[in-house]
Amino acid sequence: MSASVVAPARSSQLLQKCPTGIAGFDAISRGGLPMGRTTLVAGHAGAGKTLFALEFVLNGAAKLDEPGVFASFEETPADLLANLGGLAFDAPALIEANRLRLVHVEIDPDDLVEAGEYDLEGLFLQLHVAMDEIGARRLALDAVENLFAGFSDSRRLRRAFRNLLGWFRGRNITTIVTTEHGVQTLTRHGLEEYVADCVVSLDQRVEGDIATRRLRIVKYRGSAHDVDEFPFMLDHGGVSVLPTTSASMHHAVSDELVSTGIPDLDAMLPGGIYRGGGLPAW
Amino acid sequence: MSASVVAPARSSQLLQKCPTGIAGFDAISRGGLPMGRTTLVAGHAGAGKTLFALEFVLNGAAKLDEPGVFASFEETPADLLANLGGLAFDAPALIEANRLRLVHVEIDPDDLVEAGEYDLEGLFLQLHVAMDEIGARRLALDAVENLFAGFSDSRRLRRAFRNLLGWFRGRNITTIVTTEHGVQTLTRHGLEEYVADCVVSLDQRVEGDIATRRLRIVKYRGSAHDVDEFPFMLDHGGVSVLPTTSASMHHAVSDELVSTGIPDLDAMLPGGIYRGGGLPAW
Amino acid sequence: MSASVVAPARSSQLLQKCPTGIAGFDAISRGGLPMGRTTLVAGHAGAGKTLFALEFVLNGAAKLDEPGVFASFEETPADLLANLGGLAFDAPALIEANRLRLVHVEIDPDDLVEAGEYDLEGLFLQLHVAMDEIGARRLALDAVENLFAGFSDSRRLRRAFRNLLGWFRGRNITTIVTTEHGVQTLTRHGLEEYVADCVVSLDQRVEGDIATRRLRIVKYRGSAHDVDEFPFMLDHGGVSVLPTTSASMHHAVSDELVSTGIPDLDAMLPGGIYRGGGLPAW
Amino acid sequence: MSASVVAPARSSQLLQKCPTGIAGFDAISRGGLPMGRTTLVAGHAGAGKTLFALEFVLNGAAKLDEPGVFASFEETPADLLANLGGLAFDAPALIEANRLRLVHVEIDPDDLVEAGEYDLEGLFLQLHVAMDEIGARRLALDAVENLFAGFSDSRRLRRAFRNLLGWFRGRNITTIVTTEHGVQTLTRHGLEEYVADCVVSLDQRVEGDIATRRLRIVKYRGSAHDVDEFPFMLDHGGVSVLPTTSASMHHAVSDELVSTGIPDLDAMLPGGIYRGGGLPAW
Amino acid sequence: MSASVVAPARSSQLLQKCPTGIAGFDAISRGGLPMGRTTLVAGHAGAGKTLFALEFVLNGAAKLDEPGVFASFEETPADLLANLGGLAFDAPALIEANRLRLVHVEIDPDDLVEAGEYDLEGLFLQLHVAMDEIGARRLALDAVENLFAGFSDSRRLRRAFRNLLGWFRGRNITTIVTTEHGVQTLTRHGLEEYVADCVVSLDQRVEGDIATRRLRIVKYRGSAHDVDEFPFMLDHGGVSVLPTTSASMHHAVSDELVSTGIPDLDAMLPGGIYRGGGLPAW
Amino acid sequence: MSASVVAPARSSQLLQKCPTGIAGFDAISRGGLPMGRTTLVAGHAGAGKTLFALEFVLNGAAKLDEPGVFASFEETPADLLANLGGLAFDAPALIEANRLRLVHVEIDPDDLVEAGEYDLEGLFLQLHVAMDEIGARRLALDAVENLFAGFSDSRRLRRAFRNLLGWFRGRNITTIVTTEHGVQTLTRHGLEEYVADCVVSLDQRVEGDIATRRLRIVKYRGSAHDVDEFPFMLDHGGVSVLPTTSASMHHAVSDELVSTGIPDLDAMLPGGIYRGGGLPAW
Repeated sequence: MSASVVAPARSSQLLQKCPTGIAGFDAISRGGLPMGRTTLVAGHAGAGKTLFALEFVLNGAAKLDEPGVFASFEETPADLLANLGGLAFDAPALIEANRLRLVHVEIDPDDLVEAGEYDLEGLFLQLHVAMDEIGARRLALDAVENLFAGFSDSRRLRRAFRNLLGWFRGRNITTIVTTEHGVQTLTRHGLEEYVADCVVSLDQRVEGDIATRRLRIVKYRGSAHDVDEFPFMLDHGGVSVLPTTSASMHHAVSDELVSTGIPDLDAMLPGGIYRGGGLPAW
Repeated sequence: MSASVVAPARSSQLLQKCPTGIAGFDAISRGGLPMGRTTLVAGHAGAGKTLFALEFVLNGAAKLDEPGVFASFEETPADLLANLGGLAFDAPALIEANRLRLVHVEIDPDDLVEAGEYDLEGLFLQLHVAMDEIGARRLALDAVENLFAGFSDSRRLRRAFRNLLGWFRGRNITTIVTTEHGVQTLTRHGLEEYVADCVVSLDQRVEGDIATRRLRIVKYRGSAHDVDEFPFMLDHGGVSVLPTTSASMHHAVSDELVSTGIPDLDAMLPGGIYRGGGLPAW
Repeated sequence: MSASVVAPARSSQLLQKCPTGIAGFDAISRGGLPMGRTTLVAGHAGAGKTLFALEFVLNGAAKLDEPGVFASFEETPADLLANLGGLAFDAPALIEANRLRLVHVEIDPDDLVEAGEYDLEGLFLQLHVAMDEIGARRLALDAVENLFAGFSDSRRLRRAFRNLLGWFRGRNITTIVTTEHGVQTLTRHGLEEYVADCVVSLDQRVEGDIATRRLRIVKYRGSAHDVDEFPFMLDHGGVSVLPTTSASMHHAVSDELVSTGIPDLDAMLPGGIYRGGGLPAW
Repeated sequence: MSASVVAPARSSQLLQKCPTGIAGFDAISRGGLPMGRTTLVAGHAGAGKTLFALEFVLNGAAKLDEPGVFASFEETPADLLANLGGLAFDAPALIEANRLRLVHVEIDPDDLVEAGEYDLEGLFLQLHVAMDEIGARRLALDAVENLFAGFSDSRRLRRAFRNLLGWFRGRNITTIVTTEHGVQTLTRHGLEEYVADCVVSLDQRVEGDIATRRLRIVKYRGSAHDVDEFPFMLDHGGVSVLPTTSASMHHAVSDELVSTGIPDLDAMLPGGIYRGGGLPAW
Repeated sequence: MSASVVAPARSSQLLQKCPTGIAGFDAISRGGLPMGRTTLVAGHAGAGKTLFALEFVLNGAAKLDEPGVFASFEETPADLLANLGGLAFDAPALIEANRLRLVHVEIDPDDLVEAGEYDLEGLFLQLHVAMDEIGARRLALDAVENLFAGFSDSRRLRRAFRNLLGWFRGRNITTIVTTEHGVQTLTRHGLEEYVADCVVSLDQRVEGDIATRRLRIVKYRGSAHDVDEFPFMLDHGGVSVLPTTSASMHHAVSDELVSTGIPDLDAMLPGGIYRGGGLPAW
Repeated sequence: MSASVVAPARSSQLLQKCPTGIAGFDAISRGGLPMGRTTLVAGHAGAGKTLFALEFVLNGAAKLDEPGVFASFEETPADLLANLGGLAFDAPALIEANRLRLVHVEIDPDDLVEAGEYDLEGLFLQLHVAMDEIGARRLALDAVENLFAGFSDSRRLRRAFRNLLGWFRGRNITTIVTTEHGVQTLTRHGLEEYVADCVVSLDQRVEGDIATRRLRIVKYRGSAHDVDEFPFMLDHGGVSVLPTTSASMHHAVSDELVSTGIPDLDAMLPGGIYRGGGLPAW
C-alpha cells in the first residue's frame, strides 16, 4: 500500500478537452472527451459503439491533425475497411499517409493471466508499436470485454482495468474503450464505469414498434456536461447527436469540428436551474 | 497474442449484400444479409427462426442461383421435408438437382471439447462435404445452441463462436445461424450478438390475447438499415415482413427478389431526422 | 458426430394431423396435434395440463378408434379413475375393452443415470408393454418433470429429452408430454420447448380478482395455426377452448372431431394481414 | 421403476368431499377439501395459514364428528391454546373429550436424512400415535417447510413430499399441509404444488395503504371449483371467505357446514361461459 | 424428534398484551405487543427500527413500571445516549434508577458456531446479567442480523432463531428484535418472519420526490389487529403512528400511554366487513 | 463476546453537527453531518459522490477552519487537482497552507487479508500521517468499494466496515465515505448502510430524456432531518441542493455556511404532520 501526499504546488493543470468531431457531441460535452484520459462507451449490440469510436479516430486523423489507432478484438482490418466503405472517409489513404492504423488483437486467455494477475504487457506492446509508428494522439480499443470475459475476481478485475487506463494516461493519449452492457448494469462487470474518467452510454429503445437511439453522458470527471439523453442517428455521415435542449442548440448550429478550446459555458447557462436537464453538470 | 497492422492499400472492398428473397426483409435491410458473413437470427420457441433460415436457403437455391445447405441439430431431413410440405418449394427436386442439401448434425458432447477448448473440426468436415457437393453459396445452421449448451466459460465460448464465424467467412459463404433467447438476454449466453456481424430478432408478443410477430434488425455492421420493429407473418407463402414505415413502403411494393445491388438510400431519407424510427441506420 | 445428407426423393410426406376431440382446439390448430410427433403441454399447477392430456387420450379411445395409454408419474390409476368420475367417459369400460391403459410410473433416480447419461430403457419398456397390449396410437406422459428433476447439465438434458421424443417418433405414436412452467421460462429447464415439435401453453391469470384460463399454441413445426391466446374452461364436459376470432368461429361451429385432413386455409384469410392475431401462422 | 396397469374394473370411486366448516369456503370449493387426500395451503407470514388449518380441524372435532390432530413445527400446544383463546372453540374440552390432539414436532435435521434419502418414519410414528388415540379423520401439519428446509436436491425433495402425501392417503385421512411462499414461487421449492391434489393460496396485498386478504383455489384434482380470488377476513369468528360471485352467493347464504355431498353444480352454471371467473372449473 | 400431546386442561391462558406507549400503535395493535413473546421489527436502513425499539423500552422503564434492557450490536451505550439526547427521556436517570440498561454486544463469529450449530450461550449470559440487575420486563435486541450474517444453512438458521425466541419466552420477557429487509424479502433470510409471533414492518417510500414512512402489522399470532399500512413519523416526540382508519381514530384521540389492559374491541367493529382494510384481523 | 453495561451517568452528550457548507444541504440535514461520525454517500457512476465529498473537505479547509484530508482509491492528486481546476477553490494554496492533503491510496489485496480477517492497519497509518500533518478535522475516503471488493463473507465484511468506522470515531474526525450502488441495493454489499450513522443517497434518473439529479438523506442516527428527495445540481459553484419544501426554504435563503449550532427546529415544524415529506424526521 503506497500513498502520495501532494507537495504544495500552484501549477494549475486544468482539464483539457479533445474534440470528437462527432456532430452535436462536442456541444453537449462542452468541447469533447477528456484529453489524455479514457472514455468508456457502453451499449448493447448494434448500439453504434464501434462507429462512435471509429469516427473519433478518423476525425482526428483526417481533420484535426491527431493521428490515431483503432484496435479491435472482434474485427479484422479488412472487415473494418469493408464496413467503412459507405462512410465519407478514405481510410486507406489515411493508413498510407501514416495517420491511421487498424490493429486486430487476438487474445489467448492463457497468456493473460499469470500468477493470478492480469498480464497486459503483450497487449501494450502491440498498441505501442502501432502508436509509435504514426505518433498517435488518439486510440480506440473496441470490445474490451474480450479482455476481461470470464474473469470473476472483482478486485483483481478492477485493478486490471485501472492498470489499462493508467497505461493510456501514462502515454497522454486520448482513448475510447467500448464495452458491452450487462443484464442489469451499465457495463458487463458493473464496475468499469466507476474507474473510468468519462462514461458515454448508447442506447436503442423500442417503444411501440419505433426504435430510437439515445446517447447520454453518464459521468465526466472534472467537467461540466449536459446530463440529458439525446437522440442520435447513424447514417452515411456517421454519428449525429441532436442537442435538443434549447441552450445547446446554438452550439449545434455552429460547426465545432475544428474548435480546440472549451467554449465559454457561462454564457449559455439558462435561467431555470432547478431541473438538471440540459444544464452543464459537473 | 498476434496483431496485424494493415498495410496501406486502396482496394475499396465495399460490403456486398445477399438478398434473402423474403418479402419485405430485403427492403428494411437495404438489400439483404451481409454477403460472405454470418447473420444471427434469435428468437423464442415458435418465433419462426427455422422458417426464416429455410426460406433464405430455398430462395437462393430455387430463384437466385445460389445453392445452399441447411444444417439442423434438431430435425432430420425427413422431418424438414414434412414440415416444408405446405410451402411453395419443391425441396426434393432441388436436392435432386444438386442445389440443396439438408444435413442433420448429431452432437456428441464428448467429441466437442478437447483439452478445455472447443474442437469444431468434426462439424466443419460435415458442412464442408455438403457445401462442396453443390458448390453452396448459402448456409443455415439451425439451433446452434446445441453446440454450446452447458459451456460456461464465457471467454472460451466467445472464442469458439468467433472461430465458427471465422470458418464461414473463410469460405465466403453467406450464413444464417439461429439461436434461442436467454431469460433476460437476446441470446442464451448474452454474447453471441456482440460477435456476429448482423443480428435479426424475431419476437412474438401477446397483448390482450392477441399475438403479434415482430422482426427487428438489431445490428448490421457496415450497413444502413431500418431500426424499427416490423410485423411479420408466417403462412404458406413463407415469411412476410411488413415494412410499415412510409419511406420503406416504396421498396415493399417493388419486388426486390432478384435485385443484387444496394438500393440508392439517399433518395428515401425522409425529412424528419430526429426520430430514429424508419430511418436508414448504420 | 454423424450427418446424413438426404438422397434425392420426391415422396411428399406431408405432415398429418391427429384430432384431439377437444372442443375448439382442433379449429385453432387446423386439425389437431402433429401425428406421430410429440406435443408439449406446459402450465402451472392447476392449469389443466392433466385434463387436457387425459381428454386427448380418452377421445381417441372412445370416439376416434385410436387406443391410448396415459402414463403418470404423480397419480395412481385409482386416483385418476376417481378424478375422472365426474367426466362423461366410462374409463373402466375402455380399459376392459382394451382401448385404454393407465400406467403409474415410479422413478428411482438411481436407475436413471448411468455413466453420466440418462438411461430411459426402463421407462420405455413399461410404456412399450402397455402400448403393445392395446395397439396404442396415442400416448400421454404426465408430469415429465419427474424424469428430469435435479438434472443440471443442460446439454445432456437436451439430448435425453430428444431421445425421449425420438423414441415416440420411432413408434409413430402421437404423444402429449405435460411439463411445469419455470419461474421465468415456459418450461422448467427453458429448453424443452425448443426440442418439441409442437408446444401448447396453458395459463390461468388473475386480474382484479377474476381468474381466466387461456390457451396458446406457441409453436407448431410444419403447420399453420392460430397464434392468439384463447380462453378455455374446464368443467364436466372436459376442456373447451373458445376460438374467439371471427375467422376461426366458422370452424368452431362445425364439429371437427372426425376430420382428418387439413382445412383449406386460404379461404379463411381475412383482409387485414398486418396483425398476427387470429391468422393462420406457420 | 415399477408400473401398474389397471385391471379392468367398473367400481366407480368418485372423489368425495370433506366440508371445512369455514364460512364461504365450502361454497367455492363445491363441498370442501378432497376427502382422504392432502390440500396445500400456501401463504406469506401473517396470511392466516395456521388459522385456516386450525379451524378445519376444530370444526371437524366440534361439529362434524371428525376428530382431528393439529401438528405444528413452530408452536407448542400451550402457545396454540393461548392463540385460540379469542376464538369460539373450547379446545381444552375437545382435548379432554378425545376429539382433538395438539402435537408439537421438533425436528432434528440429523435424524431426517439417511443415506441421502429422507427418513420420515419418526414423524409418522408421532402422528400415528396421536391419530390413533382419538380415531382422527382430519390432520393438519403446520409449517411443513421446517421439514424440507435446506434440502436442495429437487428430485429427492419431490419424492419425499410425495411419500409424505402417500402416507396420509394410505391412512385415508383428510389433511391440510401449510407452506410458505417462495420469493417468486407459490411454494418455497416451487414444486410442492405440483404434487399436491389440492392447493389453496392465501394472500394479503397492500394497495394504496389498504390491505386486503384474498383466497384462491389454485388447483383441485378431480373437482370443479371456483377459480377467482375471493376476499376473506380473520376475526373472532375465524376465517370467513366472501363468495362475491353471484352464482356462488346462493351457496354463501345457506349454511353448508353440515352438508356432506357435492351440490348439484349444473343448476348454477351462469349464462356467460367465456370468462373463467366464478365458474365451476375442474 | 420429540412430540408432546397436550394433556386435557381447562386453564384458559389467553394471550396478554404489552402496551408500547408508542402513540397510535397500541390502537392498531389492539393493546400493544404480545406479552412474553417476541416481535420482529423489520425495515431498511433509516426506517426507524432502532427508535421504535428504544421507545418501547424507554416507555416501559419511565412510565409503565417495566424496567428494560436495550442490547445493540451496532452502537455503544455512549452512541445511544448521544442519539437519545434530543428525545424527551432522561435515559441516564433511568439507568441510575436501575430501570434501564444499555448493552453493547460485540460478536466474535468464531465463538458463535460450535460443531456446526449456533451456540448462543455467551449472548444469553450477557443479556441475563443485565436483565437480572434491574428485573427487566422488556428487552430489545437491535440489529439481530449481526448474529446470523453469513449463515447459509436455512434449517439450522431457523432452529437458531427459534432457540433465540424460545430463550426469551422462557424468561417471560416481552421482546423486540429488529432486523433488516432482504432484497426481495421482508427479512434478510426470508424465514425469520415465519418463526416470530408478531411482525411489524417499517417502510419509507419515495413517490414523486416525497418520502412517506409507513408501518404495517404483518402478522400477529393469537390477536386481532389492523392490517392496513399506517403513516408514521419520527420526531422529538419519538414514533407517532397515525391510525387513519375512522374506526381506529377514536383510539388515536385518547392517550393510550398509561393503559395496561386490552381495549374492548367488539365495540369498534365497523359494519362493512368485506374489505380487509382497517378491520381487526387475526 | 464482550458487553458493557453503562454505568449511571448524567453527562448529556448531545450529538453535534458539522456543517458541510454545501448549499442547501445544511438546511435539510438540520445543520450538517454528524460530528465525529461517518456519513456514507452512495450513488451510481457520475452521481456526484466525489464532488460532494471534495466540497465537504474543501469548505472545511477554506472557510470553516477545519483542515481536511481527501483520500482516493481511484484518482491521483494530480488528477484531482485537474478536476478541481474549474471550481472556485485554490486547492494548491490550501495544500501549501497545510489545510488540505490529497492522498492516493493504492491497495494491494494480498496485504489486506490476514488469517481470514481484514487488516486495515496499513490504510490507517497512511491516513494518520496525512491527518496528523495538518491537524485534520475532516476526512473523505473516496470509492471505499476498492477496499472491500471481492470480499464475500458478509459477517467479516460487516465487522471490517465497523472497524473502519470505529477507527474514524476514535479520532473524533467527521468523515465521508463514498460507495457505489449495488444492482438492487443502496450499497454494493447491501449492509454498509446499516452500519453507518448517516446515509446520503445521490441519484440521477432519466425520465423522458430528461435527467434529474436527486439527493436524499436516507438515515441519520440521533437527528431530525428532511426525508424527501431534493433536486441538486453540479456546476462550477459545486454541489447545490434545492430545498424545495416550503418549510425548508427559509433556511435555503439564509446562508448556513458559517453556522455551527443546530437551528431551532421546532419553529419550522409545519402544520400538517401526517405526510412524512419535508418534515424533520429522526
